[in-house]
Amino acid sequence: MNKVEEFNAYREKMNERIKSADNKVLKRFFSLDNQAYQSGALDEKTKELLGLIASMVLRCDDCISYHLGTVHKLGATTEEIFEVFSIANLVGGSICIPHTRRAVEFWDELNDPPTAD
Amino acid sequence: MNKVEEFNAYREKMNERIKSADNKVLKRFFSLDNQAYQSGALDEKTKELLGLIASMVLRCDDCISYHLGTVHKLGATTEEIFEVFSIANLVGGSICIPHTRRAVEFWDELNDPPTAD
Amino acid sequence: MNKVEEFNAYREKMNERIKSADNKVLKRFFSLDNQAYQSGALDEKTKELLGLIASMVLRCDDCISYHLGTVHKLGATTEEIFEVFSIANLVGGSICIPHTRRAVEFWDELNDPPTAD
Amino acid sequence: MNKVEEFNAYREKMNERIKSADNKVLKRFFSLDNQAYQSGALDEKTKELLGLIASMVLRCDDCISYHLGTVHKLGATTEEIFEVFSIANLVGGSICIPHTRRAVEFWDELNDPPTAD
Amino acid sequence: MNKVEEFNAYREKMNERIKSADNKVLKRFFSLDNQAYQSGALDEKTKELLGLIASMVLRCDDCISYHLGTVHKLGATTEEIFEVFSIANLVGGSICIPHTRRAVEFWDELNDPPTAD
Amino acid sequence: MNKVEEFNAYREKMNERIKSADNKVLKRFFSLDNQAYQSGALDEKTKELLGLIASMVLRCDDCISYHLGTVHKLGATTEEIFEVFSIANLVGGSICIPHTRRAVEFWDELNDPPTAD
Repeated sequence: MNKVEEFNAYREKMNERIKSADNKVLKRFFSLDNQAYQSGALDEKTKELLGLIASMVLRCDDCISYHLGTVHKLGATTEEIFEVFSIANLVGGSICIPHTRRAVEFWDELNDPPTAD
Repeated sequence: MNKVEEFNAYREKMNERIKSADNKVLKRFFSLDNQAYQSGALDEKTKELLGLIASMVLRCDDCISYHLGTVHKLGATTEEIFEVFSIANLVGGSICIPHTRRAVEFWDELNDPPTAD
Repeated sequence: MNKVEEFNAYREKMNERIKSADNKVLKRFFSLDNQAYQSGALDEKTKELLGLIASMVLRCDDCISYHLGTVHKLGATTEEIFEVFSIANLVGGSICIPHTRRAVEFWDELNDPPTAD
Repeated sequence: MNKVEEFNAYREKMNERIKSADNKVLKRFFSLDNQAYQSGALDEKTKELLGLIASMVLRCDDCISYHLGTVHKLGATTEEIFEVFSIANLVGGSICIPHTRRAVEFWDELNDPPTAD
Repeated sequence: MNKVEEFNAYREKMNERIKSADNKVLKRFFSLDNQAYQSGALDEKTKELLGLIASMVLRCDDCISYHLGTVHKLGATTEEIFEVFSIANLVGGSICIPHTRRAVEFWDELNDPPTAD
Repeated sequence: MNKVEEFNAYREKMNERIKSADNKVLKRFFSLDNQAYQSGALDEKTKELLGLIASMVLRCDDCISYHLGTVHKLGATTEEIFEVFSIANLVGGSICIPHTRRAVEFWDELNDPPTAD
C-alpha cells in the first residue's frame, strides 16, 4: 500500500471502530463534521480549502491528508494548494514547514500514485 | 471611538512603532504577510477567508478582526462569514466559541457602525 | 455588574445573536456541546471538571469561567478546583499561570459575590 | 513487541537517560508530574482522567497512551473512556479525531493484548 | 497606575492568593518555575530570553510582560528584544504580531514610564 | 541511514520539491527563515537556542531536530541543551516530555553517531 491507501485504510477501520462504541456525542460530532463542508453560501471546494488551511495551521497531518484527498477529487490545482500552504506558513509560522513537506509528498502521491510499494 | 476604529488605530500606531525599530527580518515578514493575500490562482476574497479561518482556529482575536475588516471591504456576506465560523468551530472545537462571539460583534459593527460611543 | 454577571450577560447576548443567524452547523454544534456534559457513565460534575481542565490547558478564559460557574452550582469545593488547576499547570505549563490567576479571581467571586461594583 | 510494550519500553529507556543528565529542574519537574496525580480531594482515577483529556485536547499521543495505561490499571471502563474522548473532541475540535483513532487502538490493545506481533 | 505597575500589582496579589490555597503541587510548581531561570551553563539573561520567546510563540501576553520586566532589569537592549521578536514571529507566524504590538508597548513603558495616567 | 541522516535527507529532498513549485511567498518565507538566525545583536548560537526552545514548546519534532543539528555545529554543550529543555518543559508543560525524549535521542546520535543501522 502507498501512503494514500494506508491513510485511507487506517482512517476507515478506526472510524468504524469508534462508531461501533455507540457514543452518541461522538457519532453526532462525526456526522456534523461531514455536514460542515457541504455546499452553501460557499461552495464545497472553498470549504474544503478552509478545512485544509485550518488543519495545517493546527498542524494535524492526518487532517491535512484528508482534506488534500477531498480537494483533489474536487479538482484543486497544485498552484492553488501551494497558495493555501503559503498563507498557512505565514499565519502559522515556520513550525508549519515540516507539515508542508509531508503534505506536498502526499499531494504528489495523489496526483501520481506510485505503482508499487 | 467604536471597536472597529479603536482596533484600527492601535494596530496602525504600533505597526508604525515596530517598523521604526528597523529590524529587517520583522519588516520583511510584515511585507511578506501582505503579499500572501494578493490575488493569484486563488482570488483575494478566498485568500482572506483562508486567513480568517486560520486566525479563528488559532484563536487570535486581533487577527480575526483584521481579516473581517478586509473581507467586509471585499463584499463577503454574513452568510458566508458564518459558514467560515461554523467550519472553524468544528475543526478547532468549542474553545472557538468565545472568539466567535467577539467576531460576530465586530462583524456587526462593521456592517452597522454605532453612531456614538 | 461584577465579573460573573458581566460574563454571563455578554455570553447570553452573543449566543442569542449567533443562533439568530440560523447557521445549522453552528446551532447543532452548540446543542451538541451541551449534550456532551450530561450525566452518563461519568457523572455531570466529573464531566464539567473535564471541561474545566480542557479549557485551562487550551487557555480559554471564557471557557474556564463558564465551567467554573457550572461546577460551582454542582457543589465542587475550592480544594477540588485547585487540584484541577494544579494538574492543568503541570500538563500545560507555566503559560497556564496567568489563566489560573484569573480563574481563581472568578472562582472567589462565585463564592463571595461583591455587593457593589 | 506490541504497541503498548513498545511505548512503555521507549518511555522508560529515555526517561532514565534524561534523569542521568542530572538537570535538577527537569528531575524535579518529572517528580512533581507524578505527585500531581496522587489521590487528594479528587481520587486518583478522576485525576488520571483529567490528565487524559488534557493530553487529548493538547494532542499529545504519547501522553494519551500513558494516561490510558494508568486509567486501565485503575479500572476505567470503555464507556467512560469514550465519554472523555467525546468531551475532548467537542472542546478541542475535529483535529482531535486522528488522536482519538490512535487512542482507541491503544485502548483496545490494553484490553486485549495481541499475542504475537 | 501605568500598564507595568498594573500588571505587577495584579500578578503579585493573585499569586499570593493562589499560594494561600496551600495546594502543594501548585506551590512547588511556582517555586520550580523560578528555579528554572537561575544562572547555570547558560547565564540568567539568556535563560530569560528563552522564557521570553517561549512565551511569545505560545502567545501568553502576561508571560511576555513578566519576562520583558526581568530582561529589562538584566540590561537587555531594544535591539536584542526585537531580534527575539523577529525569531518568534518567524517560528510562530503572523498570529504573533498582535502580541508583538502589545509587547513593544510594554517594553517602551519599561524604558520610559509614563509620569501620570 | 541513522535518524540524523534520515531527517536531513528527507528535509533536503522535500525542501527542493517545495522550492521547485515556484510559489514566491513560500520561497521568500524559507529565505527569511534562514536570515532570522544570522548573527546580530544576539550571536548565532543564542539565536539557534531561541529557535530550539520555540520549537520545543510548540512541539515540532522536526524543528527541534533541525535546531539541535545547528547548535551542535555551533558547539553547544549537553548541559546547555538540557537547560533549554528544562525551561521548555516548565513553560510548555509535561506535554513537552515526549518531545524531550525524542530530542535527547537525536542529540545523543549527533554526538555519537551509530556506525551501522
